[in-house]
Amino acid sequence: MIPVKTVAVIGCGTVGASWAALFLAHGLDVQATDPSPEAEAYLRRFVVRATAQLAELGLTGTGKLSFSPKLADALQGADFVQENAPEKEALKQQLLADIDDLLPPDVIVAGSTSSLLRSRLVVRCRYPERHITAHPFNPPHLVPLVELVGADADVVERAAAFYRGIGRRPVILRREMAGHLANRLASAVWREAIYMVEQGVASVADIDAAMAYGPGLRWSIMGPHMTYHLGGGDGGIAHYLSHLGASQVRRWAALGTPVFDGDTQRQLVEGVAEEAGDSSVADLEAARDAALIALLKLRPQIR
Amino acid sequence: MIPVKTVAVIGCGTVGASWAALFLAHGLDVQATDPSPEAEAYLRRFVVRATAQLAELGLTGTGKLSFSPKLADALQGADFVQENAPEKEALKQQLLADIDDLLPPDVIVAGSTSSLLRSRLVVRCRYPERHITAHPFNPPHLVPLVELVGADADVVERAAAFYRGIGRRPVILRREMAGHLANRLASAVWREAIYMVEQGVASVADIDAAMAYGPGLRWSIMGPHMTYHLGGGDGGIAHYLSHLGASQVRRWAALGTPVFDGDTQRQLVEGVAEEAGDSSVADLEAARDAALIALLKLRPQIR
Repeated sequence: MIPVKTVAVIGCGTVGASWAALFLAHGLDVQATDPSPEAEAYLRRFVVRATAQLAELGLTGTGKLSFSPKLADALQGADFVQENAPEKEALKQQLLADIDDLLPPDVIVAGSTSSLLRSRLVVRCRYPERHITAHPFNPPHLVPLVELVGADADVVERAAAFYRGIGRRPVILRREMAGHLANRLASAVWREAIYMVEQGVASVADIDAAMAYGPGLRWSIMGPHMTYHLGGGDGGIAHYLSHLGASQVRRWAALGTPVFDGDTQRQLVEGVAEEAGDSSVADLEAARDAALIALLKLRPQIR
Repeated sequence: MIPVKTVAVIGCGTVGASWAALFLAHGLDVQATDPSPEAEAYLRRFVVRATAQLAELGLTGTGKLSFSPKLADALQGADFVQENAPEKEALKQQLLADIDDLLPPDVIVAGSTSSLLRSRLVVRCRYPERHITAHPFNPPHLVPLVELVGADADVVERAAAFYRGIGRRPVILRREMAGHLANRLASAVWREAIYMVEQGVASVADIDAAMAYGPGLRWSIMGPHMTYHLGGGDGGIAHYLSHLGASQVRRWAALGTPVFDGDTQRQLVEGVAEEAGDSSVADLEAARDAALIALLKLRPQIR
C-alpha cells in the first residue's frame, strides 16, 4: 500500500463529501476544495453525519479536514487525489491538466467519473499515466465497490492497494467501457423493470419488491455468474449451460426495451410516489443507509 | 387467510422439498408425493437440514410429514396444493387434470413453475380458476419472494394471504408473462454480465464482485425504481428522468447481447471455477444459505 497520509478531495458534492468522510474515518487527513460558495458548509454537514455512521462500523479515525476554494491549496503536499468534479468532459479535461501543473507526477490522481471515459479525460494531461478512474458506488463511504480503469498496471495496482487498505473492494477493468461494470448491470435491470411497468405486468412497487425479496437478496451475497453456477445443481454452471443455456438465449430474445415516452415516465413517477408513501427522499436515504450499515456489520459472514 | 392445516406437496425435488420444510416449520402438515423411487429419502434428508436452518430464524413448528408415491394419497384431505413437477408442459397438463379429478374444486392448486405459462398448463383442467402459478425463488424456504399469477382475483388474494401467513412476500402479476418478473430481471443482468465477459472487460469473478459489493448490496434493500428515485437527489425520480432519462436510453443502446458460443461458455465455466476455488457447489450453497439466514435475521431492519 502507498503510504498515504493526506488526500486531496477535488469537488465536494455528494460523492466528494462521502469520500472525504471515509478517508477521515480511516485517519487520513483530507484537503478539500470546491469553487462553489456553499460547498464547505455542505461538506462539513455531510461529514458529521457520515462520520457517525462510520463509527457504527468501528471506523473511528480522526483525520484532519481542511477546506479551501483554491485547487493549489488542496493539492499542496497531497499523497493521493480523489477528483469528483461535475460530469462534464471539457471541465474535467481542464481540471486534470491544471492538477498536472501543480502536483508532482508520481502522485496518483483518481477520478470518480461514472459516465465519462478515462482516455477522453486525460487528453490534455502531461502525465496521463498517473490518472485513473476510480468509480465508487453511492454512497461511497458505505458501499465497498470501487471500479478501477487505468493505462499503467503499476499505478492501478498501487491504487487498488490503497483502496483495499481503507476497506474498499476494488475491481480492475482490463479496458475502459462506458458505464464501467456495475452501472451497466444496473441499466440492464432498470430497462427490463421499466419494460414490465410499460407492459402493465405489475406495479412499480411490486417489481421493486420482486427484486428486493428475490434475486436482489441473493445478489448481495454473490454475483450473477455464481448464482447460475448454483442454479446448475451438483454439475454447476457447466451443467446449467448445457441444459438451460438455450432457454436463456430464448429468454434474452423476450426481454424488452421500453418506449420511454411521457406516459411511461408518468407511470414511473406515480408508481414510485405510491411505493414511497409518506417517506421523503431524505427519509428513504436514511433508511437505506441504516440497512447498509446493518448489512456491512455482517461481514465477513456475507463476504 | 385460508384455514390451511394440510398441504399436499406434489413433486419432491429441490423446490418441493424446500416448500415442504417451510410448511412444516410453520406447523402445517405436509402430504408429499413423487413417483421417483429416490424421492422420499431425498425429501427427508432435505427437510432435516432445512428445518435446522428455519429454527435459526425462530420457526420451530412441528407439522407432520407423510409421503406416498400415490398422488391420491397426498391429495386426501389437503387444504392447499403446491405442485412442483418437472418443467414439462404436457406432463403438468396431465398432472393438473388428474388433480382436478381427485380434489374438491374449492381447494387452491398452486404451481411452482418458473418458465411455463399458467394459461397453457390449465388447458385440460375442469376447474382452471382454482389453479394459480406461485413461483418461489431458490431456496424457497429462505427467499421470501413468491410470484403469483391467476385468472380469479379472489383465488389469487386468498393464496397471497396464505403465503403472507407463512412469512412470504407475494407479488401479484396483473397478467402472465414468460419468466414472470424476477427471472426476467435475472436474465437481463446475466445477459449483460456475460456480454462483459465476452468483451474481455473484466474477469467472471470481478464482474460478480462488482455486483455483490455494489448494486447487489443495495438491491437487497430496494428495487431498481426506488434506487433511481434516490439517484435523483431531493427531486427524486422525476428529477432523474428529466435530467438523466436521455442518458439512460443511450446507455441501453450500448448494452450488449453476447454471442453465446462454445468459446464464451468455456470462459464462463473457467471463470466460475477460478472464482469458486476449492469450494464445491454444496459448499457454496451452504455459505449462501448461512448468509441468507444472517440477512433474514436483520428483518425488519432491511424490510
